[in-house]
Amino acid sequence: ARPRVGYFYTGKNGSQLLSEKVKKIRVHEYASLPVVVSASNSVYDAICTMFLEDVGTLFVIDKHKHLVGVLSRKDLLRASMGKQEIHQIPVNIIMTRMPNITVCKKEDLLIDVALKLMEKQIDSIPVVKETSMDDVFEVIGRVTKTNMTKALVDIACDNLDLQ
Amino acid sequence: ARPRVGYFYTGKNGSQLLSEKVKKIRVHEYASLPVVVSASNSVYDAICTMFLEDVGTLFVIDKHKHLVGVLSRKDLLRASMGKQEIHQIPVNIIMTRMPNITVCKKEDLLIDVALKLMEKQIDSIPVVKETSMDDVFEVIGRVTKTNMTKALVDIACDNLDLQ
Repeated sequence: ARPRVGYFYTGKNGSQLLSEKVKKIRVHEYASLPVVVSASNSVYDAICTMFLEDVGTLFVIDKHKHLVGVLSRKDLLRASMGKQEIHQIPVNIIMTRMPNITVCKKEDLLIDVALKLMEKQIDSIPVVKETSMDDVFEVIGRVTKTNMTKALVDIACDNLDLQ
Repeated sequence: ARPRVGYFYTGKNGSQLLSEKVKKIRVHEYASLPVVVSASNSVYDAICTMFLEDVGTLFVIDKHKHLVGVLSRKDLLRASMGKQEIHQIPVNIIMTRMPNITVCKKEDLLIDVALKLMEKQIDSIPVVKETSMDDVFEVIGRVTKTNMTKALVDIACDNLDLQ
């Protein structure tokens, strides 16, 4: 029988063992709730929602609650500097729209999403659920660099649910 | 002599060993270069710098190159929505100013900075060097949640310089 205390040989060192655990973390273990606005909302309304909810990225949904766009602070800043009237322009004029949105699923590996955040130089990726239609998604969460920072702290504090 | 391969008993499991390594990472191993503007620059100029350099936070320095303020995308968004003329207002009107700025040193532990980023709900912390005056600092770097995401990926990929 394997001893309950002590050690046994796995051919791996401590850091390899933990890096394997870190690689197994799933998106749903760290994702936050999404903050959404409607495609017909004005840019002004979106900026207010961003401040009220204190998030860096908003997801835009249509009347069927399907994901149609993403709004970053940069998008809103660019729009608010322009000559246009932000009370009048709807967000769907300025948003990044499907299919140019990077999405993830709740069962995806957190590390793969971390790599996407860095590669695409974005702050947030929507967690989506598929619908009966191709490339049409419902938004169920949000993964940000804040979630990644939390995961890093949990590793340092040995708070991962490792077994 | 200690065997070159295999294992020896430390009383610690793999995850404890790595969490100790993670706790030893220093700020300078992950910090980015700072992006600064002068306190007399206009809000408009600061927004342009933010877009050109593609950063989320700018540090504001005085003519002695000392840190006097911090500008987040939120600060600039708030200012650009206001009725004021962003070409006219200098950034020192809207910035968060010393001594209300959370700073870190290059020898600080990365994890302590990660905790501060989460606790203060900010995106970036300046890395500073002390001067001959109390509470007067030179900015030498920038630590962001992007750096934390990079550290997490390095752990998962077992890229830490662990020994």
